Amino acid sequence: MSRFWSPIVHTLDPYVPGEQPKVLDLIKLNTNENPYPPSPLAISAMKAETGDSLRLYSDPNASELKSALADNFQLAEDQVFVGNGSDEVLAHSFQAFFQHTKPLLFPDISYSFYPVYCGLYQVEQKRIPLNDDFDIDINDFQQDNTGIIFPNPNAPTGKALPLESIKQLLAMNRDTVVIVDEAYIDFGADSAASLVNDYDNLLVVQTFSKSRSLAGLRVGFALGHCDLIGGLERVKNSFNPYPLDRIAIKGAVAAINDTAYFEATCQRIIESRDWLTEELSKLGFDSLESSANFIFTQHKKLSAKVLSQKLRDENIIVRYFDKPRIDNHLRITVGSEAECKQLVSSLKCIIESS
Amino acid sequence: MSRFWSPIVHTLDPYVPGEQPKVLDLIKLNTNENPYPPSPLAISAMKAETGDSLRLYSDPNASELKSALADNFQLAEDQVFVGNGSDEVLAHSFQAFFQHTKPLLFPDISYSFYPVYCGLYQVEQKRIPLNDDFDIDINDFQQDNTGIIFPNPNAPTGKALPLESIKQLLAMNRDTVVIVDEAYIDFGADSAASLVNDYDNLLVVQTFSKSRSLAGLRVGFALGHCDLIGGLERVKNSFNPYPLDRIAIKGAVAAINDTAYFEATCQRIIESRDWLTEELSKLGFDSLESSANFIFTQHKKLSAKVLSQKLRDENIIVRYFDKPRIDNHLRITVGSEAECKQLVSSLKCIIESS
Repeated sequence: MSRFWSPIVHTLDPYVPGEQPKVLDLIKLNTNENPYPPSPLAISAMKAETGDSLRLYSDPNASELKSALADNFQLAEDQVFVGNGSDEVLAHSFQAFFQHTKPLLFPDISYSFYPVYCGLYQVEQKRIPLNDDFDIDINDFQQDNTGIIFPNPNAPTGKALPLESIKQLLAMNRDTVVIVDEAYIDFGADSAASLVNDYDNLLVVQTFSKSRSLAGLRVGFALGHCDLIGGLERVKNSFNPYPLDRIAIKGAVAAINDTAYFEATCQRIIESRDWLTEELSKLGFDSLESSANFIFTQHKKLSAKVLSQKLRDENIIVRYFDKPRIDNHLRITVGSEAECKQLVSSLKCIIESS
Repeated sequence: MSRFWSPIVHTLDPYVPGEQPKVLDLIKLNTNENPYPPSPLAISAMKAETGDSLRLYSDPNASELKSALADNFQLAEDQVFVGNGSDEVLAHSFQAFFQHTKPLLFPDISYSFYPVYCGLYQVEQKRIPLNDDFDIDINDFQQDNTGIIFPNPNAPTGKALPLESIKQLLAMNRDTVVIVDEAYIDFGADSAASLVNDYDNLLVVQTFSKSRSLAGLRVGFALGHCDLIGGLERVKNSFNPYPLDRIAIKGAVAAINDTAYFEATCQRIIESRDWLTEELSKLGFDSLESSANFIFTQHKKLSAKVLSQKLRDENIIVRYFDKPRIDNHLRITVGSEAECKQLVSSLKCIIESS
């Protein structure tokens, strides 16, 4: 606390990221990182850019990356916005679109950053409960709002909302912006990117942190009608005109262009997820059907809190949320095949000795 | 314009960065980049980090960089804040400290981003005219304020405010935050970083973009009392917890530790600046005394606007501001020795043929 702070600073309740331990030899299944390295082509492109040219500013518009993304999604360059991770893209979006009167609607169980942005930008919020199966019921979102945002697949549940439902939601809510936060879209759900040309109030946000294995590079993007992108550009250019450095632009371009590597990596994770879900079931876990690179699960007998502590003792970190409705669930990132096997083996020991 | 934009978006007047031309073979003296490459140790450190570890998030606290900066400035780690370029650090600072009632004070001629931040964060502004010699007179800042900000050396004038004046300003203004924006400090002025332990309302902002030759990497930082840094952390962690990527952290650490390279580069630029000032004088230019890596100058006969256009025809870009009081000045970045010579030779031709 300080008398020098602006009044709003006292009211903020900052986001707490998942632990990033500095200890080695941990099996880190707590922040949904990709167990496989980035595309070798992305690594080469970044190394090639690491030299004398770093003395010069990066392209403030990151046109090369916008162009690569536009090609990838069959959109125009002015339908693409890029930022320093999808968290920054989301922050700008809250300021650009959600400061009308009326509340912002989002699921009660979803990305825990949304209420933090509401605090930062003084956006009134209304949390819409997921149904008993942890599904989004779009009819619950048919009410006055300043905007709607939800992750698809949802986090931490991993459950996907079908594209047909998203279309219905967009059709019944034409006057405010609907953001579909697709951080985990590439692991099995259908992207709303294909709807961008049909709905001028749709913004799709994605990231290079998960399916592109570049969490440590900080690149995210948004796809939407050029007027929405224009609003984001106005905010971004009033905040920080150069959010992406030269290396990040080159790495992201190469990553988005390496479709073969991307598809193979996603497929490998999907197969591990299915195997792990099956093994967890044999051990007495009930898991939600995941379309993401993590599994949201609870054990029939042992509490999630205890399990997460016992796994930690075995040098395996998973995510436990001490929050209503989900305080007996664990969110487990799908690791490499070896990590999944080690997890199953450790869980087996823990359960047998309990 | 779009009905979906938050009301504030319509009112924004975004910053327009200096041109980043994509054409090669230009002598680029318009955005105050360093003519010399980054430290070879920084390049090596970045290349070493460009690999599999990029799949993992960066340290949200960037502790390694904070620690290196703390050592460099003989401060504690909790007196250091880091961000995605000093523009981001400044943006967070406006939100964290300048949203009280009363106006923010800054010089009428200074970094043109300050009024943009005022627009974004709804901060009332009062511009204090520089005196006729383009100097800051600190007595003019002795009035009610929500805070004070100025670049030192000032931009685009290049003139430095002595440390003694900054001390007086801080002493007569104990109740609001004073930000000294030291983007160009390493080219000849005295840093207020040495005053951080004496004034709890001082925030010093610096960047890796100029003296460290890393404009393309996007790293900036602030030094101040731990309560001020705490306020910045609250805002940052409500906006984007991971603003620095893994490569940027490693590169910045190596750059800050390579003191010998840094000092040699700065010295070389200072020598070129002094040589260029002398040559410009011979050609009929009046230059302000610069403590920065650029020269703010006007010609006795030829208009700045015409000169900037004729230089452009010769493939040399300098910065021209079409603004009151300075619309007959050019801001010329100090390039390499060869670039300075080419500039002088081109100016000689232009002036002789006019």
